[in-house]
Amino acid sequence: MSGAARVLERCDRLGQISEEPDRLTRRFGTEAMREANRLVAGWMREAGLDPREDAVGNLIGRRGEGPAMMLGSHLDTVVGAGRYDGPLGVLVALEVAERVPAPVEVVAFADEEGVRFGTAYLGSSAMTGIFEPAWLDLRDEDGVRLGDLVHDPGPARANVLGYVEVHIEQGPVLERLGEPVGVVTAIAGQSHAEVVFAGEAGHAGTVPIEDRRDALTAAAEWILAVERAHGTVGRLNVEPGVRNVIPAAATLTLDLRDADDAARHAAVARLRDEARAIAARRSVTLSWLQTGDVPAVAMDERLTAGFGVSTSLPSGAGHDAAMMARIAPAAMLFVRCAGGISHHPAESVAEADVEVAIDALERLLRAG
Amino acid sequence: MSGAARVLERCDRLGQISEEPDRLTRRFGTEAMREANRLVAGWMREAGLDPREDAVGNLIGRRGEGPAMMLGSHLDTVVGAGRYDGPLGVLVALEVAERVPAPVEVVAFADEEGVRFGTAYLGSSAMTGIFEPAWLDLRDEDGVRLGDLVHDPGPARANVLGYVEVHIEQGPVLERLGEPVGVVTAIAGQSHAEVVFAGEAGHAGTVPIEDRRDALTAAAEWILAVERAHGTVGRLNVEPGVRNVIPAAATLTLDLRDADDAARHAAVARLRDEARAIAARRSVTLSWLQTGDVPAVAMDERLTAGFGVSTSLPSGAGHDAAMMARIAPAAMLFVRCAGGISHHPAESVAEADVEVAIDALERLLRAG
Repeated sequence: MSGAARVLERCDRLGQISEEPDRLTRRFGTEAMREANRLVAGWMREAGLDPREDAVGNLIGRRGEGPAMMLGSHLDTVVGAGRYDGPLGVLVALEVAERVPAPVEVVAFADEEGVRFGTAYLGSSAMTGIFEPAWLDLRDEDGVRLGDLVHDPGPARANVLGYVEVHIEQGPVLERLGEPVGVVTAIAGQSHAEVVFAGEAGHAGTVPIEDRRDALTAAAEWILAVERAHGTVGRLNVEPGVRNVIPAAATLTLDLRDADDAARHAAVARLRDEARAIAARRSVTLSWLQTGDVPAVAMDERLTAGFGVSTSLPSGAGHDAAMMARIAPAAMLFVRCAGGISHHPAESVAEADVEVAIDALERLLRAG
Repeated sequence: MSGAARVLERCDRLGQISEEPDRLTRRFGTEAMREANRLVAGWMREAGLDPREDAVGNLIGRRGEGPAMMLGSHLDTVVGAGRYDGPLGVLVALEVAERVPAPVEVVAFADEEGVRFGTAYLGSSAMTGIFEPAWLDLRDEDGVRLGDLVHDPGPARANVLGYVEVHIEQGPVLERLGEPVGVVTAIAGQSHAEVVFAGEAGHAGTVPIEDRRDALTAAAEWILAVERAHGTVGRLNVEPGVRNVIPAAATLTLDLRDADDAARHAAVARLRDEARAIAARRSVTLSWLQTGDVPAVAMDERLTAGFGVSTSLPSGAGHDAAMMARIAPAAMLFVRCAGGISHHPAESVAEADVEVAIDALERLLRAG
């Protein structure tokens, strides 16, 4: 069996380990995650690695002593997930670790998706020393306290020479380019905001258009401005939300990403100016709450060059590599996924593409 | 005390009769409505009218025998209402009935707003013979059956020479024109639709703008087209409605009104074409469900001329007069209301304007 075939077979087996009978859901700290860790720990031993779990449940398999490269990704999933987002990177790492003689660590992070406690990157935050003790008091929707599942992990890991992660693209760019893999140049920074246009309710039959202060038409104009800026409005609530009542308030979210932080900040400032101008022209009020400003994280150029892959693209989604870049040079390789579909049971990768990824990761490690 | 002062004082007294302690809510078939009918019946007797209630609880005060003009409006209210929407027309009618010697009926309809059973114009539907026996099986939110409150009213009333209704404008047009009152030319027809744009969900960080099938940006374009057509989008729901997920579906309502039915149908057809074109250009699907098509109702020109008022405007909102026009010539007079505000405790009319309305209604009756 080829390495890629084994990786895909293992993804299938991990895909059977779920909290739910009919779909794949494997959240942090659940029995399903413990079972997944046991299965992967067994494969680590078969590969000659020595597995252990850290304070938050990250599974780490090591071979050799002293400073080592760390390869991996995460084993937790979203609700109703596909089989490859996370596990593919762990299993490709394991495949390559067997092939290269140097000291190496394969990591399977316990929480990247943040589904259960709303804390994305719990696993890699713990490893990089930015785990906040206050998080221990967070509770899941059943009232279970995070602190009853994990211990404070303490300071950042030392002795990590570099971190390398293979992950499905979760977008359609490689497919459109006809490329099996691409190196990640940077993990895009993100701007998040909650924007409210507030006007005045009124009877749809009695208030002429020129007398209206319609919050939704103001929002509609701005949504198109966000689209022109390559941003996303994912949520929009209208009040009172009745067919024959002119909307009094429209509350929207903004999500705008760019690998260049200065360009991103400039784009957000322009969108805010545009929202102000729309509000002024339509006699509605604007309120703008910045809810997130996550800086971009550049991948390490020297490490990335080791893949020997010329196709490159930024990552719009966040990944554990963005955290790990705090303590070590980091690099990422994206694998083409069918239709760009992710976070869905239809998530799919081709065996030949996985083979290309395995070879590229091996090349990087040998270039080390 | 002037007639107008007495009308406003009586509006104040009726405004105290509510289902709720802190705001005015008087829905069909409640103890508050029975109390309001008792109070108005007493005023009818003082004015020399003989009050009775019909099968659905409409209160009708008559003086004289044979065919008669009918004057009135409704006594039920929305939730959290003002004091004038409905009662003003009943009390102006009562004031004028006292001044004119001809046979006359003053009607206080039991349900115009349709808040409790979702059936607007229950009162005037009953009087015009279009009450549906199936409505008796309707239940309110507490499970009370309409049929336990009212009887089938049977065929339409005969002997109605004409129906004349005074009502607050519920819009800002008279205020902008600087006119105390205006005659209603027609009650606008209404087109209602539920429109769904359906695209494809996707990750806000990984799907480039040019690969998206965003349902919300399609909806935003169309909302602005509806505004240009002087229509209203009052409700908009976005799915899944998450900041970092490209909207997969947007469901909107359309409310478009015009006193000219042909113009209204043409406008709706244009909006539907525009929605189709937007959907095609953005590779999203469109579904269009017509949920209402209410024809415009012209007021009677001869009767309307009797007001002796030159200012005229269409009514965008529906009124009992639209129903009554089925069985008799109908006319309506709008009274200016402050800021166009209605369905709100801040609803307000000026005593001098009410005096103008009383005089105009008296003129119409004497013009007979």
